[in-house]
Amino acid sequence: MCQGESAQSTTSLCQCSSFGVRLSETPGAGPSGRRHPTSRTGLSRRPVAADRSIIGRAPQILHRYTTASLHSARHPSYPYQRNGKYTILTTSHVKELRSLLPHPTSILTTLDLEDPATATSTATATEDDLAFYNIDWMGKYKGRSQVVVRPRSTEEVAKVVRWCHGNDVAIVPQGGNTGLVGGSTPIHDELILSLSHLTAIRSFDSLSGVLTVEAGAILETVDSFLSNQAPEPGFIFPLDLGAKGSCQVGGNAATNAGGLRLLRYGSLRGSVLGLEVVLPDGRVWEGLSGLRKDNTGYDMKQLFIGSEGSIGIITAISILCPRRSSSTNVALFALPTYDACLEVFSQTKKHLGEILSAFEMFDKASYDAVKAHGGIKGRNVFEEQAQKEARFFCLVETSGSNAEHDAEKLSNLFESLLSASLILDGALAQDASQSAEIWKIRELCPESLSKSGKAYKYDLSVPVEKMYTLVERMRDHLRGNERIKGVAGFGHMGDGNLHLNVLATEFSDDIQRSIEPLIYQLVSEYDGSISAEHGLGAMKAPYISFSQSTNSIELMRRIKEIFDPKGIMNPYKFVLPRRDE
Amino acid sequence: MCQGESAQSTTSLCQCSSFGVRLSETPGAGPSGRRHPTSRTGLSRRPVAADRSIIGRAPQILHRYTTASLHSARHPSYPYQRNGKYTILTTSHVKELRSLLPHPTSILTTLDLEDPATATSTATATEDDLAFYNIDWMGKYKGRSQVVVRPRSTEEVAKVVRWCHGNDVAIVPQGGNTGLVGGSTPIHDELILSLSHLTAIRSFDSLSGVLTVEAGAILETVDSFLSNQAPEPGFIFPLDLGAKGSCQVGGNAATNAGGLRLLRYGSLRGSVLGLEVVLPDGRVWEGLSGLRKDNTGYDMKQLFIGSEGSIGIITAISILCPRRSSSTNVALFALPTYDACLEVFSQTKKHLGEILSAFEMFDKASYDAVKAHGGIKGRNVFEEQAQKEARFFCLVETSGSNAEHDAEKLSNLFESLLSASLILDGALAQDASQSAEIWKIRELCPESLSKSGKAYKYDLSVPVEKMYTLVERMRDHLRGNERIKGVAGFGHMGDGNLHLNVLATEFSDDIQRSIEPLIYQLVSEYDGSISAEHGLGAMKAPYISFSQSTNSIELMRRIKEIFDPKGIMNPYKFVLPRRDE
Repeated sequence: MCQGESAQSTTSLCQCSSFGVRLSETPGAGPSGRRHPTSRTGLSRRPVAADRSIIGRAPQILHRYTTASLHSARHPSYPYQRNGKYTILTTSHVKELRSLLPHPTSILTTLDLEDPATATSTATATEDDLAFYNIDWMGKYKGRSQVVVRPRSTEEVAKVVRWCHGNDVAIVPQGGNTGLVGGSTPIHDELILSLSHLTAIRSFDSLSGVLTVEAGAILETVDSFLSNQAPEPGFIFPLDLGAKGSCQVGGNAATNAGGLRLLRYGSLRGSVLGLEVVLPDGRVWEGLSGLRKDNTGYDMKQLFIGSEGSIGIITAISILCPRRSSSTNVALFALPTYDACLEVFSQTKKHLGEILSAFEMFDKASYDAVKAHGGIKGRNVFEEQAQKEARFFCLVETSGSNAEHDAEKLSNLFESLLSASLILDGALAQDASQSAEIWKIRELCPESLSKSGKAYKYDLSVPVEKMYTLVERMRDHLRGNERIKGVAGFGHMGDGNLHLNVLATEFSDDIQRSIEPLIYQLVSEYDGSISAEHGLGAMKAPYISFSQSTNSIELMRRIKEIFDPKGIMNPYKFVLPRRDE
Repeated sequence: MCQGESAQSTTSLCQCSSFGVRLSETPGAGPSGRRHPTSRTGLSRRPVAADRSIIGRAPQILHRYTTASLHSARHPSYPYQRNGKYTILTTSHVKELRSLLPHPTSILTTLDLEDPATATSTATATEDDLAFYNIDWMGKYKGRSQVVVRPRSTEEVAKVVRWCHGNDVAIVPQGGNTGLVGGSTPIHDELILSLSHLTAIRSFDSLSGVLTVEAGAILETVDSFLSNQAPEPGFIFPLDLGAKGSCQVGGNAATNAGGLRLLRYGSLRGSVLGLEVVLPDGRVWEGLSGLRKDNTGYDMKQLFIGSEGSIGIITAISILCPRRSSSTNVALFALPTYDACLEVFSQTKKHLGEILSAFEMFDKASYDAVKAHGGIKGRNVFEEQAQKEARFFCLVETSGSNAEHDAEKLSNLFESLLSASLILDGALAQDASQSAEIWKIRELCPESLSKSGKAYKYDLSVPVEKMYTLVERMRDHLRGNERIKGVAGFGHMGDGNLHLNVLATEFSDDIQRSIEPLIYQLVSEYDGSISAEHGLGAMKAPYISFSQSTNSIELMRRIKEIFDPKGIMNPYKFVLPRRDE
């Protein structure tokens, strides 16, 4: 309830227009009100990369980094040495690549060109320029590639890959480089193949909702096209996530990104209808179907979805885009216990049925971090007592085609929750701006926690009733460790997807060992997954056996071998080769 | 509008309680009102198979068949000869199998046992008994297996498969044997491994909606459990199809069945969360995850979904089951042209948004067949003029959580359609019984067309705007052919899934050649799929190249080889080996 209201029993929540979520200036906030990912700071940028805007990168990071800091940035304990079978690139290789990709901005390299006359017409780059591609947005993973290629068409991608295949050159396919597990940066000196110049929207059919778009298109740009610019506006991309201003749709498919709309629209495995993929030998796999149904053999596109660049490079996707709902409501509840969250989750699904589009949870530690570091000012959302007692917060979003109907359903839910005393208090956004403010609290959790300490981040999937037990067990385990500042949990409760953050005084192998592999063991104990939506990348590749059986891993290795017998695609990550290879 | 109403302009449809869909006695109609598949007739059954009810088999078939007719029943032009690498089963093999599966009803065989003493304690069978397993429900595909095994647990399945693997015995995994492409019957003398004795519901979690159930459970039984018997009732299986009274959920997953709920709940690729699979060497692949999200390597279960028994035998599935909607509405529209259908489809999606759960189409030829052969009596659904002018009919179903809201949305849709003169007339069911009657018209299409002539049936996927062009082109092509009685089309318009029926005076290679491969060429021309939801089986295996590239087929063959290097799993079907093998 709002301040000023009596505490008497009521059947409807506070709906006053100033419920108290007041945020500071939010320069990145767009029309949707969600926070736009902000640019990386501290990165010197040269004009050569100017055609790729730095506005709209992955979430604001803690670490400023410069060339000097690169060498300490890499995940300190990553065990894989450079494999000698891969060719070391030289200037003569770059010349060959230039003959394949003649456009002046297609190749960035720090390799000195032998012929000064040629050099004048070539896009060269400094190490700082390549840092954009070599280092992930967190500054956690750092490669030392000297060559970035940016083809402008599927044919050019195929040419480069064919050349790499013929020359034993290892490749890291790279989308927006917004991942969290070190999947899109080189481990050593692999050639980086950036998809950022493949951005065309090839077609959109408003009858079927099928969109065909190239891999390098930015998620937010595509979503905005569907919303406003398509021949018939009012459609929505069935995926949304914090990095939407920087991540690319090809990378989304390659990592099987989950995000904020999965509860409503399902995973990309259902909505992606087709793919165009350059195979590791340079052949193009033409699978850009726009059909909802196709039962003619193994569904090959499913192998590419979530394959993290290990068996091919996605150059275009076709995807089923639903109509954008005309009515959206957002509410935030304060709850005393995780058991209450579970009951509210169950009740919400019952009452809201087909209009429920998100059910997100964050704990008090996360909320406190947002209040301290998220740039949010103003009074609390909830009345004082509730704010004091609340240990958990649940964000509920509805999306429907009739505002009146949706409001009525929400109102019925509120009545039911309040009469059962399941929530301490609740707030219902009165307009799009307030909806955005509530969403902002949830979306600021990752960044704010990173500002509260050195954050060890884990993306985990467990049965929903066990989600918070995991946080509590880690908290118990780390209690007394002076270098641990706290353990926080938030995530997509509707999907059983927990983002667990351990906040420490520093990043060190020692602290990491106090968390891993224990955290993965606990997940395994609950039949969970060590990676819900972020993938394996470099970070979790060594721990796959906590989520996959020996049989599975062996079958995966054999699939990798079918597609990429030379092992040139995104090496040292994902499904690793047998030890003896 | 109803008879008796004036033809003046109106903004709401006829809603009288007797809108005229009067059906004859429908002994198979259950509580849902949908037609239960009926038993096969003419099949002599022995007590040995009595534990497997014949009530609830696949849709009523045309052909009565007996042992004598079996030899003419097989698809006449199927080109694959028996491969000599497979062991011919003998009584000594049966003895070994009996030691693996001691239960008396686990093995059915027509092989004479050498030892009469042993024979007395063994389940033997006549050829007629095995016809149930050897022949598909249409009587179109016929094998001549002499051994059917019916294991009672995953461990027993694994034992049998391991034994087959060791002895080079070819296996046909069989669920409800309700398929339409000859995928679940032997081509020659393969051992039939029936899943029908694995029927347990292992667990259901009402918080997450995750059900884990064994492969042999009947779809309708499972759906009914979710609806009524679970600890918390009111859930729904996210798949429904005509053969629900006979088909098994394992077979549904193995064939990636589509059906009537796909528009709302998406494909099994999204809702199946995990599988338990016995691999071709007898190892058990433990993948029964209940997680909505898991990004740890290639999504192996996707290879098994839709693999038609080619790389393993699904013994259990875990699947996400949504809550059953409390409100359902069904309406039927009469339309003058296919273009009108397209516009109504578009308008319907706009108006009904999240509550639209089915959009089915059938043409006049299909409706006429239902009126003539479907057992429907009584007056027409629509007013005379509309009935006369109508060339197409669209069935719209809504499922929502608030009856009043849904009715209002439907009413808005009707107003819009009538004011734009897009429909000739429409009927809205007033209760569950009328809903069932409208559904029955659509569901009787396949069977009624089969009664109108020898029906050559094609399950095709094309962009929705091309769906009916395909029917018209086939009609043009076959015009003047005296043995062709007509061409009809119906299907899941919401999914771009057309069921095209060519009605002829007889089944013959000659007539088939006048349809195939032309029909597949046309589909390919429209970037469609030669199998939307029925799979490849034996029928479409030779035609895969109309829907898949050479690259794809080659990769599929290599995947098959990884799992099943001996090629013992469901041979002569699906993705065929290279010609030289």
